[in-house]
Amino acid sequence: MSRAERGELLERTIRAIGPPDADAAARTAALLDAKAKPPGSLGHLEELACRLAAIHGRVPEAPPRPAIVVAAADHGATARGVSAYPPEVTAQMLANFASGGAAICVLTRGAGARLVVVDAGVLDAPELPEIRVEVVDGVRGTADLSLGPAMARSTAIALVERGIALAHRLADEGFDVIGVGEMGIGNSTAASALAAGLLPADPSSVCGPGTGLDEEGLHRKIGVVRRGLEANGLSRADADAIEVLAAVGGLEIAFLVGVILGASTRRVAVLLDGFITGSAALVARQLAPACVGSMVAATRSPEPGHALVLDALGLEPVLELRLRLGEGTGAALALPLLRAAVAIVSDMATFDSAGVSGPASAVPVDA
Amino acid sequence: MSRAERGELLERTIRAIGPPDADAAARTAALLDAKAKPPGSLGHLEELACRLAAIHGRVPEAPPRPAIVVAAADHGATARGVSAYPPEVTAQMLANFASGGAAICVLTRGAGARLVVVDAGVLDAPELPEIRVEVVDGVRGTADLSLGPAMARSTAIALVERGIALAHRLADEGFDVIGVGEMGIGNSTAASALAAGLLPADPSSVCGPGTGLDEEGLHRKIGVVRRGLEANGLSRADADAIEVLAAVGGLEIAFLVGVILGASTRRVAVLLDGFITGSAALVARQLAPACVGSMVAATRSPEPGHALVLDALGLEPVLELRLRLGEGTGAALALPLLRAAVAIVSDMATFDSAGVSGPASAVPVDA
Repeated sequence: MSRAERGELLERTIRAIGPPDADAAARTAALLDAKAKPPGSLGHLEELACRLAAIHGRVPEAPPRPAIVVAAADHGATARGVSAYPPEVTAQMLANFASGGAAICVLTRGAGARLVVVDAGVLDAPELPEIRVEVVDGVRGTADLSLGPAMARSTAIALVERGIALAHRLADEGFDVIGVGEMGIGNSTAASALAAGLLPADPSSVCGPGTGLDEEGLHRKIGVVRRGLEANGLSRADADAIEVLAAVGGLEIAFLVGVILGASTRRVAVLLDGFITGSAALVARQLAPACVGSMVAATRSPEPGHALVLDALGLEPVLELRLRLGEGTGAALALPLLRAAVAIVSDMATFDSAGVSGPASAVPVDA
Repeated sequence: MSRAERGELLERTIRAIGPPDADAAARTAALLDAKAKPPGSLGHLEELACRLAAIHGRVPEAPPRPAIVVAAADHGATARGVSAYPPEVTAQMLANFASGGAAICVLTRGAGARLVVVDAGVLDAPELPEIRVEVVDGVRGTADLSLGPAMARSTAIALVERGIALAHRLADEGFDVIGVGEMGIGNSTAASALAAGLLPADPSSVCGPGTGLDEEGLHRKIGVVRRGLEANGLSRADADAIEVLAAVGGLEIAFLVGVILGASTRRVAVLLDGFITGSAALVARQLAPACVGSMVAATRSPEPGHALVLDALGLEPVLELRLRLGEGTGAALALPLLRAAVAIVSDMATFDSAGVSGPASAVPVDA
């Protein structure tokens, strides 16, 4: 695939993603082993500290500076009855994000994170100063993926590049963790189609009830995903990630693919949320495998496809709270754990500094 | 069992524990269902909000006010080679708690909680203003449980009553969540013996490596627990909880049994930490089954007995981070999730207030 076909910024970004900094991770692990506690006894928290070190390329010293990007867009597949909610809810929720009343607003405030609300293609979107408009060529809402491509290839690339640019801007502002979240009635259908196409997996094994479909609705959703893969010729093994993204993805998902890639080039940790952001991560990995090294999985959702996606990415989630809301809520809830992981490295006393004895060289046993 | 045999305050406390407030929980659930999100889509977080409502007897309105009590004591069984660390580490860590360098200090600071450091019977304990001395009759360190009772019955009761009194004092100061933590080289052996005696279960199914025993050490530990149960005649089905506690428990565990019971009488939520605090919860449940309604399990540790204890208590942990440090670290890490659960109830917009449509009465399907 030539550079022209993927966009100059995207090509440059893909090439710029470096490997994790194994040395920073090893130095962090050594610091943790010197702390006054049995080695590894803080489990996943210690691994998280080392992973952040590897991503950032430095031993953690200061609290993470997190932002959460919630991108919203509409989905043509809603016409097929794939969601329990009517499509106008996307625009209504976008307004709710802007006014501070949504779950993600409450949770980012609690976590001390910046919330960036992005309109990546919402129909009848409210125009409010709190909403960042990242609409490409006036495209609002995808076409019905079960009939053909959800969006033009050029739209997908342009949205990815918009996402890259936003991530770079946030990195310039000093943010070193970017949580990704999404809103879009119908977008678990797009995510399911992406997962089915990219893992690959049968639609019946990735589709779930989303925000509350009944059995009949789930059956319908599986059929829509299956038709989408067929209508777009995605059974071909050589389909590239941008092609799959344009065929069955969502505008907000394309944007988040860019955020993930852009953060990775700048050594900013990407905090994944639920299944839909996981599908964006799959696309990003297909484009630039090294970007997986920048990812941290906040949560595992009950949506069956999410476990498959996390397995494919090789990520163990920090939380498992049966969340199925999206918006970045899982990412926001994981932020205090990231902060705690860093504080353990930066603030805890060592065996030496606290005057605490290490393990007994020989365990004493009375006769 | 007569009142005199258990102590007046303990008897009074056991009788004073009321049932969870089902009405407050139901009102909280109704509020959550009105929020602009699919019903139940915040999973465990919503259940946590309802549980806090049931415990506190009110719909959550303000952020929780948490304290963490970390109680330390020494264990005679360390003479049997049941820990990877030498016994003097208990006193050294107590000093580390006081000086603010321990993991639990770092994590309680991060979580905005009050830390209460308790000496419940540490040998050669440092005397520092930050340490609250709750030593009964000068008893520092238990006797070797594999030879006979770890402590006198009167000591156990007195420590439980000290714990009750501290919980009442914290409740008076306005704390409405008390996390329980512990430190004591050798105390996972005492906890294993308590779990084996009270679940009941075979020692081999509850014992684990604790803070880092090797295979041989684990084998030794199982033998110590087995001998402890035999030496103390705990195979009798009619052994009461105070008898088991005195026979194979720890001084810090006895104190925490009291903290749990005392918090329960005052409708303060008890946030359990790992396996050792779980064994204290088992004792408390045996004394006053209703107190389980006040408990929230912060975490599930890899120690095999902990899963059995949580199952017996019917508690699903909030976190699963492979923590095996104790000190209350799991409880501290769960606090932001409790705060988030409350914020969702108090701060989120409703479908009505945000002007968001509810589920479609009929899901639209194009012809």
